[in-house]
Amino acid sequence: MTVTSKRWILSQRPASAPSPSDLEFTEAGLPDPKPGEFLARTVYLSLDPAQRISMSDRTQYAPPVEVGSVMRGFSLSQIVVSRNPNFSAGDFIRAAGGWQDYWIGSDGVKLDTRIGSLEDHMSLLGITGATAYFCLLEAGQPKAGETVVVSSAAGAVGSLAGQIAKLKGCRVVGIAGSNEKCLHVVNALGFDACVNYKSPTFSADLTEACPGGIDVNFENVGGAVLDTVLPMMNLHGRIAICGLISTYNEEGPVRGPLNFDLTLMRRLVIRGFLIGDYWPRMNEAAQALSSWRADGRIHNSVHVIDGGISYALEAITVLFQGGNFGKVLLKVSEPA
Amino acid sequence: MTVTSKRWILSQRPASAPSPSDLEFTEAGLPDPKPGEFLARTVYLSLDPAQRISMSDRTQYAPPVEVGSVMRGFSLSQIVVSRNPNFSAGDFIRAAGGWQDYWIGSDGVKLDTRIGSLEDHMSLLGITGATAYFCLLEAGQPKAGETVVVSSAAGAVGSLAGQIAKLKGCRVVGIAGSNEKCLHVVNALGFDACVNYKSPTFSADLTEACPGGIDVNFENVGGAVLDTVLPMMNLHGRIAICGLISTYNEEGPVRGPLNFDLTLMRRLVIRGFLIGDYWPRMNEAAQALSSWRADGRIHNSVHVIDGGISYALEAITVLFQGGNFGKVLLKVSEPA
Repeated sequence: MTVTSKRWILSQRPASAPSPSDLEFTEAGLPDPKPGEFLARTVYLSLDPAQRISMSDRTQYAPPVEVGSVMRGFSLSQIVVSRNPNFSAGDFIRAAGGWQDYWIGSDGVKLDTRIGSLEDHMSLLGITGATAYFCLLEAGQPKAGETVVVSSAAGAVGSLAGQIAKLKGCRVVGIAGSNEKCLHVVNALGFDACVNYKSPTFSADLTEACPGGIDVNFENVGGAVLDTVLPMMNLHGRIAICGLISTYNEEGPVRGPLNFDLTLMRRLVIRGFLIGDYWPRMNEAAQALSSWRADGRIHNSVHVIDGGISYALEAITVLFQGGNFGKVLLKVSEPA
Repeated sequence: MTVTSKRWILSQRPASAPSPSDLEFTEAGLPDPKPGEFLARTVYLSLDPAQRISMSDRTQYAPPVEVGSVMRGFSLSQIVVSRNPNFSAGDFIRAAGGWQDYWIGSDGVKLDTRIGSLEDHMSLLGITGATAYFCLLEAGQPKAGETVVVSSAAGAVGSLAGQIAKLKGCRVVGIAGSNEKCLHVVNALGFDACVNYKSPTFSADLTEACPGGIDVNFENVGGAVLDTVLPMMNLHGRIAICGLISTYNEEGPVRGPLNFDLTLMRRLVIRGFLIGDYWPRMNEAAQALSSWRADGRIHNSVHVIDGGISYALEAITVLFQGGNFGKVLLKVSEPA
């Protein structure tokens, strides 16, 4: 059997928002899997801000995607044919399968569909949930009674991070890009307040929402949002840098926040975070989040775009334009 | 007895480097000490970069010095007359006595002249030594075998921080403002290397001096120096912000370092530091430093300007122009 893989190739490094001149939708015949390999079919492709980083040649987590190669990305896939004894046809795995519908690989994390749905494994119980959990608790180190601010509060990670902070006894203030999102963040997710960073009164609104200042900033955005938050940080405050999405479509060096001297005056701690440093502890996060959800104490939002792999570029554009509530997943195929 | 105090009054907030139009040298008659108070005579005035901060109205450690008030500063003083049962005439104390030769106060840290000279208590065994010790070990958290970079390496704190890092088994690279200082840092202080940030090849020189990258950055300078260091930081590197002297004469918001996104990509930790958070642990630093010096393993440099209190403005100018090796002290009077 010859399988054709539809996929997105990075044709050039984007200068700003990724466009069809940067990513080419194409197809290629796949070879049969060799011993140790499997053929997998993508069910859900995860769309993440960090994918934009891997399109660029800036210094980053891992080497960038090479021009001419398939775009990198985590996906949930189902094994079709396996020549690897650790995987059987029908197994679901989470792996860096890339922006393609069929792919050949040899490694992945096998998923237990008894403990959560496929969408759960790509959101609350997956990398997204674990990012929110460890970035908040390890990089942010919130204590009960403290004020935690979360940017991208309606987004995949931010929506969970804020809810975890509430569970830990904090006052939680979200920052989001529309009044509609802010309503969702307060009413559906239970944040204490949420402010719209696109409002001309953003800074005053945030000050009002944080009458005791800010102890922990869970940063997903950077740029002007971080510039606004930093002066409100309290003595010994912590800034957990989970992402800096506002800078990912920019060229040239990313400048640090204004009023950087406050790191000194207020003895702040700024910690960069990547979930890859926590792979061995993934179960710890999944168990906590799963248990909180079972108790009805946490709400998971998934924004599924049901378009097939050809919609990947549209899907990441939705993410960068802030058109999503919660985790953006592209539905690529029906599981068998 | 009426005592006249010669002192420096902040007459306006400096717009750049402090000048005679910003600080007025004047005198005033002091009242007799009331019950609980003492009259003290300044022996050594400490000149510190942070004093420039307290002249400004930027957000800072403590409220700024008010215009019209005596300039703030730590000094070593001797009690002349005491109406406080904790102090006796002749006692030496370290206190925030300010830029004046006689002053009335009620509190200070009594110094034991058997364990060190007066100069020692204002450098190695005082706030300077403790700043180097705790900022390096607690904010920088160096491990043996790591590469530590120290800016202002010939300065009061940097010269000690680098030597402590050597004692902890690190490779230590200094950054200083002249080739002469670099020779001192390597030959007298035992750093592994030192580079001159005023050289046009500074960035290449630092890269060459740190072939394995940088694990800990002990930052005293900020600005262009920090911009150069940041891209060389290794995964999980730590930036201990002890000072940002290059920004203290600037007006307006201090921008953060370029390539700030590397905090995320390399999971860096940036920690602001102030010795005031460590007052209860001062003895720990003094004991360690004292013992290392007794073993000949640490060298203390003190730059005494023997000019009396009228030289305070010149003395802080020496500091900001980098004309010193080690701790700058202004000799104000002979101890009795």
